[in-house]
Amino acid sequence: MRVAVVGASGYTGLELIRVLLRHPEVELCAVTSERRAGEPVGEAFPALRGLLDLRFEAADPSRLAGRAELAFTALPHAASAPIVRDLRKAGVPVVDLSADFRLRDAETYAAWYGPHAAPELLPGAVYGLPELHREAIRSAELVAAPGCYPTSVLLPLVPFLRRGLLEPGAIAVDSKSGVSGAGRKAEEAYLFAELGENCRAYKAGHAHRHVPEIEEQAGLAAGGAVAVTFVPHLLPVVRGIATSIYGRLRQPLSSEDALAVLADAYGDEQFVRVLPAGETPSLASVRGSNFCDVGAVVDERSGTLVLLSAIDNLVKGAGGQAVQCMNLMRGLDESLGLTEAPLVP
Amino acid sequence: MRVAVVGASGYTGLELIRVLLRHPEVELCAVTSERRAGEPVGEAFPALRGLLDLRFEAADPSRLAGRAELAFTALPHAASAPIVRDLRKAGVPVVDLSADFRLRDAETYAAWYGPHAAPELLPGAVYGLPELHREAIRSAELVAAPGCYPTSVLLPLVPFLRRGLLEPGAIAVDSKSGVSGAGRKAEEAYLFAELGENCRAYKAGHAHRHVPEIEEQAGLAAGGAVAVTFVPHLLPVVRGIATSIYGRLRQPLSSEDALAVLADAYGDEQFVRVLPAGETPSLASVRGSNFCDVGAVVDERSGTLVLLSAIDNLVKGAGGQAVQCMNLMRGLDESLGLTEAPLVP
Amino acid sequence: MRVAVVGASGYTGLELIRVLLRHPEVELCAVTSERRAGEPVGEAFPALRGLLDLRFEAADPSRLAGRAELAFTALPHAASAPIVRDLRKAGVPVVDLSADFRLRDAETYAAWYGPHAAPELLPGAVYGLPELHREAIRSAELVAAPGCYPTSVLLPLVPFLRRGLLEPGAIAVDSKSGVSGAGRKAEEAYLFAELGENCRAYKAGHAHRHVPEIEEQAGLAAGGAVAVTFVPHLLPVVRGIATSIYGRLRQPLSSEDALAVLADAYGDEQFVRVLPAGETPSLASVRGSNFCDVGAVVDERSGTLVLLSAIDNLVKGAGGQAVQCMNLMRGLDESLGLTEAPLVP
Amino acid sequence: MRVAVVGASGYTGLELIRVLLRHPEVELCAVTSERRAGEPVGEAFPALRGLLDLRFEAADPSRLAGRAELAFTALPHAASAPIVRDLRKAGVPVVDLSADFRLRDAETYAAWYGPHAAPELLPGAVYGLPELHREAIRSAELVAAPGCYPTSVLLPLVPFLRRGLLEPGAIAVDSKSGVSGAGRKAEEAYLFAELGENCRAYKAGHAHRHVPEIEEQAGLAAGGAVAVTFVPHLLPVVRGIATSIYGRLRQPLSSEDALAVLADAYGDEQFVRVLPAGETPSLASVRGSNFCDVGAVVDERSGTLVLLSAIDNLVKGAGGQAVQCMNLMRGLDESLGLTEAPLVP
Repeated sequence: MRVAVVGASGYTGLELIRVLLRHPEVELCAVTSERRAGEPVGEAFPALRGLLDLRFEAADPSRLAGRAELAFTALPHAASAPIVRDLRKAGVPVVDLSADFRLRDAETYAAWYGPHAAPELLPGAVYGLPELHREAIRSAELVAAPGCYPTSVLLPLVPFLRRGLLEPGAIAVDSKSGVSGAGRKAEEAYLFAELGENCRAYKAGHAHRHVPEIEEQAGLAAGGAVAVTFVPHLLPVVRGIATSIYGRLRQPLSSEDALAVLADAYGDEQFVRVLPAGETPSLASVRGSNFCDVGAVVDERSGTLVLLSAIDNLVKGAGGQAVQCMNLMRGLDESLGLTEAPLVP
Repeated sequence: MRVAVVGASGYTGLELIRVLLRHPEVELCAVTSERRAGEPVGEAFPALRGLLDLRFEAADPSRLAGRAELAFTALPHAASAPIVRDLRKAGVPVVDLSADFRLRDAETYAAWYGPHAAPELLPGAVYGLPELHREAIRSAELVAAPGCYPTSVLLPLVPFLRRGLLEPGAIAVDSKSGVSGAGRKAEEAYLFAELGENCRAYKAGHAHRHVPEIEEQAGLAAGGAVAVTFVPHLLPVVRGIATSIYGRLRQPLSSEDALAVLADAYGDEQFVRVLPAGETPSLASVRGSNFCDVGAVVDERSGTLVLLSAIDNLVKGAGGQAVQCMNLMRGLDESLGLTEAPLVP
Repeated sequence: MRVAVVGASGYTGLELIRVLLRHPEVELCAVTSERRAGEPVGEAFPALRGLLDLRFEAADPSRLAGRAELAFTALPHAASAPIVRDLRKAGVPVVDLSADFRLRDAETYAAWYGPHAAPELLPGAVYGLPELHREAIRSAELVAAPGCYPTSVLLPLVPFLRRGLLEPGAIAVDSKSGVSGAGRKAEEAYLFAELGENCRAYKAGHAHRHVPEIEEQAGLAAGGAVAVTFVPHLLPVVRGIATSIYGRLRQPLSSEDALAVLADAYGDEQFVRVLPAGETPSLASVRGSNFCDVGAVVDERSGTLVLLSAIDNLVKGAGGQAVQCMNLMRGLDESLGLTEAPLVP
Repeated sequence: MRVAVVGASGYTGLELIRVLLRHPEVELCAVTSERRAGEPVGEAFPALRGLLDLRFEAADPSRLAGRAELAFTALPHAASAPIVRDLRKAGVPVVDLSADFRLRDAETYAAWYGPHAAPELLPGAVYGLPELHREAIRSAELVAAPGCYPTSVLLPLVPFLRRGLLEPGAIAVDSKSGVSGAGRKAEEAYLFAELGENCRAYKAGHAHRHVPEIEEQAGLAAGGAVAVTFVPHLLPVVRGIATSIYGRLRQPLSSEDALAVLADAYGDEQFVRVLPAGETPSLASVRGSNFCDVGAVVDERSGTLVLLSAIDNLVKGAGGQAVQCMNLMRGLDESLGLTEAPLVP
């Protein structure tokens, strides 16, 4: 299968290349970058020297359509929608990694991101979290790969919302992210000298753009509105998101009960690993892999459920999950190209 | 003033030495370490070469009593109590940095740490958080310097508890700590190869030994029992604790109101800095200093108060705060030796 | 092919497992660890949970011989030789990752490591650097995988020695290594709090055990004795070795000439990438991969040749290179299991 | 003494502020930054909140002249010379931290940096390395604080050059620097995601702008031309430079002899610590302090002298050393404001 990556020179695009290079059914036929058009990939990114024989090209949907059987789009929000529309018009199935097709509701989108350039595509877009929407993804032509934070939040949280075990109006999410989540932005805030030996919260409360995405999907699971207080933090780490969620139980539950809820939801999943009682997820256990590790503890004194998760933000939080969706869309084994073990240490 | 540091070869002890060396009213007269007894400090710790002319000695309270006008004890819990008892018997005022005198209630102590070796001293011991207990510290002869996590939790939290603004049964605390907080323990879990590029929660829920300390002090502030769900995390950072606290408001409050509560409590404090709206505390802004930076955000949709703090765990969370207490006990300017600016970057 | 890893719970052993899991022709049939015998691998190392269904077992060469068609031994030096001898007696081909079979000369071994337990095997052992000894490896039954530092030194250096371009008595090697190179040793020196934000030389001059290995192989290439002054440094990095070599040219050479020497030696090699003029190798470009990137610059004023290299110490410096040797020994495509792209970023 | 810092918002400027705040004889009277003119320092840099009551102002030499008794200029090269000229015309003594007055020879300056804006000042400028030029600094009105790399190179190297112990045409310097040395530049190359877990050489050979500065000072010490092959590396560290120097001995020397040369040169110096045999300098031992730790090893087989050093690039490599010069210029105790112990850990 010939596949194109549109917007291939950012961290997400590079991770897509890394995953697709090892995919046994995929031939990477085009990679685009406006800024680097014409440059051989291996010159622009020395890590990839000798691994693929492609040059970056400018993104031209009509030219891509003739070559690619499926396209990944890894562009900034707002820049993605017009390209996706053209690719779809040309009949190319798309997995979009921007925020442009994650929200069902164009008004919510507009409130957080500005006017939507292709709202007509929203009804047909499927939220690409396979563990929650596998069947819909199989038959989709446009899949919106979830944000990295939402992936780390929804996987542990949704099983409890589906069963109505949590008060929907008081969920606090404390996420810690590696810096690659911010993309390759040449801004002072992301310099090594600013972030080394550092950690800080940012956009705390109800301010980060992943909040509406988390709340929409959480609401679908709960069958009603869910309010999430979200506090993201930056870690002095390149890859990985560790999330801790604090919810109030509607009924008494033990830690064992909580783990059973997770095991029931994910016991058959290949990429979600439910940790045994007493273990906690760690970034080091998922680095470079498509795993999401989840754990749970109940503080019975206060009726508080603590959910913990860890992902590699560039794999399960971006490129790996997008390929998992592609596999489903094309009827392939869902895990093709994704079975690599984590880097230990 | 001649001062001794008992247990001076751990990270807390070394930080005490670092702070005391610059203190204009202090002469460091003795430093103890069983393992390194006889070694010149500058040979054991090359960073200190040339800065002080002392050898480590074994801890002998009676010998110390004749030389030191005040002693800091930085020993592991349970090891500290007998030495403190002997020092106190010999009339030496003590600032203890172990957990042995932080809890008022010997039974709570026993439940978390085992039998207490000197319970008779508990009634006279004062919890050494100057911003909360300044007057008591001034007249104390035995001060228990708080744990690093509790310092980062209590400073932002207590003003809200004192005013009854939070539901006392549903406070979630998410703390992220640098590795020096674990001390210089040669264990696999603390190796660079295990913690680099890593982050993980541990002892989540109601399992960490700092929980009873936080709850006892929080309860004093609230005038009744407070339940704290506590999830500590390890950061790939040497120094620093960043804490995010999630509480449920009993009445509507804006972010500005919340910041006003903090400003009211700490406007006159030299070492607690209340950040303006929109700013968040960061480890990099307190590194090497005695500051605790605090901030607040309210998510009005769900009535959730988010409190944020950052400290250097070895300064405001240990050695610096202990010296702040010493200054109070001796009638000195509270900030002597503690005005050093943070290391930026 | 059924393969065993003896000494599978150290960092080198775990990396072997990671590489072998993705190898299309390998079935991992046994993994040994005295300390963890009986434990399922996925419980001992949560990163590997769900990826293989094996328990660690004690190392019993006779039991392994009946099951494994080839064995990797990743034990400490001195501990390895007796096991290798027993495996070889039972007819099992072995790739040994310890230092026990790297030196041809038992006396040199004894001088650096102590008496050798199986000197009778030394004549038949082949030094497992495929780019230098490919044909010998193909027919070997016992291959000694090189040390991580020597790999990073010999690949850039040997082409110049073979051509007699360098003074053999004045080569200075400055290597910087990630901490995983020290293994999982619970020692104070390797704690995160000691190594974070730190860098230091150690065993400088002629003191590190990799010196004789480098000098022996360098001498073979030069056709005479070579003296290497070796200064290893510890980096606050988990994986990777960056090496800079300073040699005195016997005749004028330009930077372009030097790069041509490297290109001539490695133009057809899959895992050695010669960087173009002006580029320098970086750990980030080889992380998680089997590549060795090499570069060269000549300071014509002083007749100094600077050679630069970067490897992932656990892949090209250990597990990956060992698998490369196995592929050669078994007549497989040399790159099987080793084509994974580096982790970027 | 009233002191101004011109160019106070870069990393070097901030470090000057940090050091001057604790200096007992200094009152910081003005800090300049074009970009941040008008902003209170504590708002621009939250770490400094509450520590000083100044606003950044635009740099106006005539206005500064009326207020400041001495000025530090921490501007980029070429930008500094005109301001320094105006300050000097107005009679203000200056310690300049740019490269503009470090080279005696305006042609060498022009070759590396472009035309010099104030060459008439070069003859009177003194190179501000107190351990080498103490007397000249005492009577200077314009001192050029050395570059960070040159400080780490010259302190260990010069004693050997002065005694003629090294071949002057074959000195190789391998330096490893923390990222703050690059300044606060918002460039991709300095992002955390690019530098975390990374290390790489750059500008290797004879390409870095600190080469002429090292060679000029080395030549003065040797009494003739010295050629230095210089290979700087970037470390994933915020602060610190570790340097290893490889020189060829002109006559046999033991490691003990080499250490004696260093001890003879620096035995009375407060800020240069000569380590005993077998110890190696480490960034962690000088972090935040004005120390330069130096060590030496001889590889007698090849007649190679290895010199090792460690400094905090922002203290002894910039702001601390500049204050040391100021103390000398003003007849103060040379160590005022500079006796702070290193941050351990």
